[in-house]
Amino acid sequence: MNKIYLASKSPRRQELLKLMGFEFELLLKEVDESYPKNIPLTEIAPFIAKKKADAFEAKPDGIIITSDTVVLLGDEILEKPQDKNHAFEMLSKLNGKTHQVITGVTLKSETQTFTFSETTEVTFTQLSEEQLWYYILEFQPFDKAGSYGVQDWIGMVGVKRIQGSYTNVMGLPTERLYKELANYR
Amino acid sequence: MNKIYLASKSPRRQELLKLMGFEFELLLKEVDESYPKNIPLTEIAPFIAKKKADAFEAKPDGIIITSDTVVLLGDEILEKPQDKNHAFEMLSKLNGKTHQVITGVTLKSETQTFTFSETTEVTFTQLSEEQLWYYILEFQPFDKAGSYGVQDWIGMVGVKRIQGSYTNVMGLPTERLYKELANYR
Repeated sequence: MNKIYLASKSPRRQELLKLMGFEFELLLKEVDESYPKNIPLTEIAPFIAKKKADAFEAKPDGIIITSDTVVLLGDEILEKPQDKNHAFEMLSKLNGKTHQVITGVTLKSETQTFTFSETTEVTFTQLSEEQLWYYILEFQPFDKAGSYGVQDWIGMVGVKRIQGSYTNVMGLPTERLYKELANYR
Repeated sequence: MNKIYLASKSPRRQELLKLMGFEFELLLKEVDESYPKNIPLTEIAPFIAKKKADAFEAKPDGIIITSDTVVLLGDEILEKPQDKNHAFEMLSKLNGKTHQVITGVTLKSETQTFTFSETTEVTFTQLSEEQLWYYILEFQPFDKAGSYGVQDWIGMVGVKRIQGSYTNVMGLPTERLYKELANYR
């Protein structure tokens, strides 16, 4: 009952779980990430995390972790960009403003399924259009909610301030997850 | 006038400056890091950063960056620990509480010397004594102010929340530094 399965393609999540000191096995499967249009914006990430967990059979020897991260700017959800123009549009919206990053996490075993989420506020300084394009073309942030990675160049020079968990912005709220896993096992 | 010299042994600072996209040359010298007992606690890090800069001759072809990071818990300054027992004592004080990390940075060229500092609040969850010892013995955090690295295991499982710049806690306030370097050059 002690094994950990991480169902995520994200190299950041894999790295964070390793830094937490855990060994784990990857589970990979394409899951439809759509959500009903009438749920509150702050519940989208945990909804999708739970939906991802539903796509896997529980394991008899351990816990499956699924997760989803969204960026919330005012009343708009920013997911992964479709292409570079879409990424530029998203980064232009985030530029010079404060947004929220919400990561939902589901822990699933044979006996229970538990979902939680964590929110972090991220404030961007004002970057130039040239800087946004440089980032998009050099770093290709197309697999990232909101079109940026806080651990990338744009996080170094563009993120002025965060409030909450830093690793949550990368895709896993590690401190909370560690606590929940300890309770779960 | 465009070269950057980093006067720091810290691998974290070197990594951050690289992530910011800069090439630089390292300058290494032992500098006495003592400070007068009567200066305000929040001015110790910038005082030492400036003192480190004073130890180097200005370069005709670029800017020298020096830096110092201290941990401030209430009215107590925590610097680098002397040994493992000292590290345990420091981490026990930080455990379950909020402290401030202050990094002072000095930029020195032939024509000017400019010092600034940035403060980030870091909140630790309550860890067990076993966890603190595990961290100290496994990670040997003896070159780190306050005896911890936020990017280490203890940062993953123990840091509940930060308020301000994350990279400042690692040793360089990258967003501010980027801006100041742009103004300087």
